[in-house]
Parts: sequence; C-alpha cells; structure tokens
Amino acid sequence: MTITITAFDRSPDGGKGLARDTRVRWALEEVGQPYDVRLVGFPELKQPAHLALHPFGQIPTYEEGDLALFETGAIVFHLAERFAGLLPADADARARAISWMFAAVNTMEPPILDLTTARIFEGDKPWAAERLPLVQARIRPRLDQLAARLGKAEWLDGDFSAGDLMMVSVLLRLRPSGMLDDYPTLAAYVARGEARPAYQRAFADQLAVNTRA
Amino acid sequence: MTITITAFDRSPDGGKGLARDTRVRWALEEVGQPYDVRLVGFPELKQPAHLALHPFGQIPTYEEGDLALFETGAIVFHLAERFAGLLPADADARARAISWMFAAVNTMEPPILDLTTARIFEGDKPWAAERLPLVQARIRPRLDQLAARLGKAEWLDGDFSAGDLMMVSVLLRLRPSGMLDDYPTLAAYVARGEARPAYQRAFADQLAVNTRA
Repeated sequence: MTITITAFDRSPDGGKGLARDTRVRWALEEVGQPYDVRLVGFPELKQPAHLALHPFGQIPTYEEGDLALFETGAIVFHLAERFAGLLPADADARARAISWMFAAVNTMEPPILDLTTARIFEGDKPWAAERLPLVQARIRPRLDQLAARLGKAEWLDGDFSAGDLMMVSVLLRLRPSGMLDDYPTLAAYVARGEARPAYQRAFADQLAVNTRA
Repeated sequence: MTITITAFDRSPDGGKGLARDTRVRWALEEVGQPYDVRLVGFPELKQPAHLALHPFGQIPTYEEGDLALFETGAIVFHLAERFAGLLPADADARARAISWMFAAVNTMEPPILDLTTARIFEGDKPWAAERLPLVQARIRPRLDQLAARLGKAEWLDGDFSAGDLMMVSVLLRLRPSGMLDDYPTLAAYVARGEARPAYQRAFADQLAVNTRA
C-alpha cells in the first residue's frame, strides 16, 4: 500500500530541515520504504479536510490504506514497529529505545521550543532580552544530563534507534542558537545522525521542495 | 516479577495528583497490576543512583526484573503493550491511540507547562502580568481543536485507551488555572477520566503518600 505523508508547501524554515516532516522522511528512509508527499499550504492546514487527518492542523500526517495517523512521534513509532531498522529486537532494549523517543519529545523538546517561541513570537516584546537567559538556563541542565548519559557512546542505548532519530531531530532545533557548540559530545552525536545516508536523503528531499522554482 | 516505580517523597503539589507518578499508577490500576513504590527525596533525584535509572533526575521510573525505564509516556506505553486494557486489539485503532499519547505529551502538554512555568518560575518577574495572556493564548487554540475533535464522544477514539489516560492527565494540569471551565466538553471528558475506579485508586494512593504523618 502506498504511504503518503504531508509536508508544508513552503516550510517556514526555508528548507533547513526543521519542519517535522523531515523526521518522518528520515524514518521512512531508514526503513527503506518509498512514499508520496502531499504538500499543504498554510490556509489548508486549518480547513476541514486537513483537520480530519490532523486535529491540530499541523504537518506531517501519515496515510496508508485506511490508516491515518498524526503526530510525528507516533508516525515514527508506527514505522519502527512495522518495518525493521529502527527498534532493537530484544524486548527490554526496545522498551528503552521507546523511553528515548518520549524523552526527546516530552523532556528535551519543550524547553528547546520555548527558545524558538521566545525568539520568534516574543522577540519584539519589552522583556525579550532580559528573559532570554532564563529560557536558555532551563535548557542547559537537560543538555548537561543528556551529555552525561551519552558519555562516549555513539548512540543513546546500543545501536541507532528511533530514540536517536527523535533526539537528534530535537537537538537540531537548537543549532541556530549556538548552544550546541558548548556541548561537543552532543554536537558530535547530532553530526553522526546527520551523516547517516537516510538523513541525507530525507534532508535533500525536503530541501528540494522548499527551493523549487 | 515485582514492578517498582518511584515517586516523590513529598510532591510539590502536596498530593493534588499532578506529579507524574499518578499517570503510571493510573495505568497500573487500569491493567490490574500490583506494584511497589520507592519514595525519593529531592536531593536523591540528582544523585548517581537515581540518575542511573533516570538520566534527567526525575520521577517516575519503572523497574521490573532487569528492565529499567524512565519517561511517563514510555512507561504507560510499556504497560499498555504488555497487559490488556489500555490499547485496542485492532492494529489501526492501536496506532491511532498511540497518536493520542504522543499528542498529549508533545502537542498539548508543552503550552500547558509554559503556563506553570510562567506562574511558578517567572511569577515574580516584571513581565509576568503582561506576558500571561500570551501564554494562555497559545493554549486556547489547542483546547478549541481538541474539543472540536472530541465532539460529543466519550473518549478520543472509541474505547478508553492509553491516549485518553495521557490526555486527561495533561488536561488536569490546567484545572488550577480555571481555563478548563471555558470548555465544558473537555471538562466533562476530564471528569469521566477522574471517575474511573482505576484513577480513583491511583489518586488516593499518591494522596496517602503526601498526607502521611
């Protein structure tokens, strides 16, 4: 059955790979599944046809036959469960990889997204400059703890997994801030993720959409 | 094998059920599994023994034989996968329930947590009063969209699932703000969750910890 995902017609990041379809594209490339992309403009996101697929009017969505899914983490998990390559076979190792998927979206991503919010949506507010260090200070303990756990390992728990895919993707959001530069082991971890051929293909494909004439 | 979770020795909420062990207790009650609780004080959270279990020094954790997990969402999912009662048998319905689990922690919870952060950690800042409406305004579209999707249904997608358990738990964090009162169908949804015998037992057990002499 054909897999179809949605992506922004024009991503707000202009193709830097930060829109969440990149995570799903990456997962699809890791598991070697072909897919179609339906591009959606901003006005369409909030219209009934798209809201039927995604109750919060976002991208990406995932369609495969009668199945329609939303939420990047859930789509990546569905792919990881259905196809080999993103979750270990051992039951305990699999459960730990899923812990890292949730840690990426629920422990690491919220303070990182706050930084984006502070810069983009509150950058013109009178408190912007004074508040920014507070927002950054809420991210640093998480980065310290993640770096401590990763140590000298290549990936978070044994082989590359969907947990790494999600964590690298979340950390990539931090790169424009320069904060990753203070964490060389995390920067190297992110670079290892980006160097994977599957990531390279996913990145190139979203870039092609966002730089087309 | 005995299941052991960790919880705060004294929860910052004094037993209102907002500490995340309540979510795991609720899941354990729904699937009918007995469990032990090890209480952890704040200084211990950041010590090596606990960090070995939870890299971010939080509660809850989950131990069962050789398996150690962290992240509430991952623990609830592990229980839902292992025992009957929290995920539908049909593969597509199961994948959709997992979408709601991720939606709860990655789409709904971050703006709701921002409200807690604004009140608790930035409540004394000069921008607190002026910024609060912005933070609330980022939650309302999510509540509108969730209410629209729920409609007149009892649960988000068919029978009660781990997706509802997580979503109700996230919405409960919003109750102190009064914002839920503007959404009667969501308030009723949360009340249905709270009325479940499994939730009642979980709530009572965490309350007993926090009100013991």
